[in-house]
Amino acid sequence: MSEALKLGIAGLGTVGIDALKLIAMHGERFASRTGCAVEVGGVSARSRRKNRDIDISPYEWFDDAVALAKSEDIDVFVELIGGEDGVAKASVEAALKAGKHVVTANKALLAHHGVELARLADAKGVALSFEAAVAGGIPAIKTIRESLLANKITRVYGILNGTCNYILTAMRESGRKFDDVLAEAQEKGYAEADPSFDVDGVDTAHKLAILAGVAFGCRLDFEAVHIEGVRHISPLDIQFAEELGYRIKLLGIATRTEHGVEQRVHPCMVPLAAPIAHIEDVFNAVVVDGDFIDTTMYEGRGAGAGPTASAVVADLIDIARGARVPTFALPVKDMEPFKAAPPESRRGAYYIRLMALDRPGVFADVADVLRDNDISMEAVLQRGRAPGEAVPVVM
Amino acid sequence: MSEALKLGIAGLGTVGIDALKLIAMHGERFASRTGCAVEVGGVSARSRRKNRDIDISPYEWFDDAVALAKSEDIDVFVELIGGEDGVAKASVEAALKAGKHVVTANKALLAHHGVELARLADAKGVALSFEAAVAGGIPAIKTIRESLLANKITRVYGILNGTCNYILTAMRESGRKFDDVLAEAQEKGYAEADPSFDVDGVDTAHKLAILAGVAFGCRLDFEAVHIEGVRHISPLDIQFAEELGYRIKLLGIATRTEHGVEQRVHPCMVPLAAPIAHIEDVFNAVVVDGDFIDTTMYEGRGAGAGPTASAVVADLIDIARGARVPTFALPVKDMEPFKAAPPESRRGAYYIRLMALDRPGVFADVADVLRDNDISMEAVLQRGRAPGEAVPVVM
Repeated sequence: MSEALKLGIAGLGTVGIDALKLIAMHGERFASRTGCAVEVGGVSARSRRKNRDIDISPYEWFDDAVALAKSEDIDVFVELIGGEDGVAKASVEAALKAGKHVVTANKALLAHHGVELARLADAKGVALSFEAAVAGGIPAIKTIRESLLANKITRVYGILNGTCNYILTAMRESGRKFDDVLAEAQEKGYAEADPSFDVDGVDTAHKLAILAGVAFGCRLDFEAVHIEGVRHISPLDIQFAEELGYRIKLLGIATRTEHGVEQRVHPCMVPLAAPIAHIEDVFNAVVVDGDFIDTTMYEGRGAGAGPTASAVVADLIDIARGARVPTFALPVKDMEPFKAAPPESRRGAYYIRLMALDRPGVFADVADVLRDNDISMEAVLQRGRAPGEAVPVVM
Repeated sequence: MSEALKLGIAGLGTVGIDALKLIAMHGERFASRTGCAVEVGGVSARSRRKNRDIDISPYEWFDDAVALAKSEDIDVFVELIGGEDGVAKASVEAALKAGKHVVTANKALLAHHGVELARLADAKGVALSFEAAVAGGIPAIKTIRESLLANKITRVYGILNGTCNYILTAMRESGRKFDDVLAEAQEKGYAEADPSFDVDGVDTAHKLAILAGVAFGCRLDFEAVHIEGVRHISPLDIQFAEELGYRIKLLGIATRTEHGVEQRVHPCMVPLAAPIAHIEDVFNAVVVDGDFIDTTMYEGRGAGAGPTASAVVADLIDIARGARVPTFALPVKDMEPFKAAPPESRRGAYYIRLMALDRPGVFADVADVLRDNDISMEAVLQRGRAPGEAVPVVM
């Protein structure tokens, strides 16, 4: 490595721009703490002339991210392009093959191709770092990969998507419907024009697959994630949950069971006494359970330019300090194959809301069905009466 | 370093014993993740024959911790003796001077002598690691020293003492008095026979001084911590706090101000909407505010054998991997001198409870005093009437 760590930054959206700002503002801090200065050896993005927050003309421009990835003038390729394939994948592969360290915020890329990319990094002995890809400003990856490594981790779960958490918080606080709140989130810039990636749980699933790989030492398997989003949640559900002492959160949950690894993304009823119930708005949280640590939770902004840029630079600091940890805590050759727990092995509690006609005998019918299927009830709530019409029954 | 990392463990209380258990149980995990096995080169404690959870006879015994610290058979000295001076200090100094890495859980030692010990570590190029000293299982030190290093940290605060948090939680839930709950905590082993270190805030202050040093890059100054404990809190205060929408927590708070660093430990009214208000029982939490990260919180068990042992082994993992970070994030020569913010520079909100005689004019007198001292009120609560007797007035 040269005396200064030279970066090639591909993708100049808000995160890329904040990373450039951070390096400009705290470059001395970086050098004094790592013993190594940091410089920008080149930048690349779709459009050179787009109006940006800062002047990028001092940086060498590359039309082609792949060319930047292979440039002799860089030590580390910072991929902030996004997308599971295309230029992002091509440029990261090119960088690793050229023996460059890679720092990326791209969860889709890692969830789909993380293992093969990690193999390339192993072969070249370079870092493939991705703190920014999961839960933004929360150092979840480093914590699991380093601080909690002494533990056998049994479960990792969390609120991994700020858009969904914002929507659920706003629905609860205002009593408004999903569609109204989504529209507002889009106006505020908290949700994309096409929100399906976020609200249907895919983004959470990407992050969960990565967390499971790091936590359990098994190869990532995004396809094995059971995914359910938040579109179908009604203000009524949120209100009933509160009455029962719960708050609805979209969680990604990965559990190591005796039957294999279970990965699921779906709305959950979280007891109000749990700290994670109080993680609101765009904040994210990651909870890790281990055999010696018991349980720990990490909370912070899961997205946004500043926190994400901070996570990118944290990875650069480790690279500058010469700290090398295998991509998913173990070299790929030592990772176990992914073994999915069969869905029928799952036992748990469920929230069911029925809209039942208010007439004698309906409740007995419901109870019969539950009994016939060996399902027991913890709580039942029926509110209001409207003879001949449908009323909600919640259990 | 030899092929296996050889440990000398001094202090075989519950943490020391759990560290030995963890190494025995997860030794292979350690080796596969670090590329380096771990062995115990010797142990030392006050009594060799004390009845312990595990058989320590396979380990080489040292009557003298200082002799163990200097032993040729160890690479890392693990100090779990405790106490700010005496054998703990002598053995840590001896280990550092002999060029051994040191891992310690001793917050009193670091709060009082951390800077001089760090100087010894700097001189020998060895690690002085202390994740276990602050907030037990929560990787607060590594997070601040590495993951958040790209940020200018403006404030670090938290619930740093599990005993106090347990007492405050139990007082709130049961409505019982401090003395009753303390006695119960002592029975359960959550509080020491002499509880003053915990309940008077000294333990929190030790941890706060360490956090401030790591977060702000200035030399530690334990003497500059303003300390107030929890003995004087009554169930009445806790009840009023809840009614006003707050929960009482003992916080340690270090803030970087334009006038210098402010360090204070005292009970605080935390708004119920804040996640830290919901950190209950013996759990700890650390919150860090930085310029790019905004705010992040880390929660977990702040004490207990398992979490503390996990933190000790996390430091050993970093040492085995060859990761070297200066003790307080910077070499001592580059740390700024500590500059304390003058107490009169502090502006904030306060909770005041008066027991006032219920007679006409009392309230006007109180209001006059506040006005004459340029203090404004946000909320006032008076509950109940008892003419001629004292009733609580809260503001």
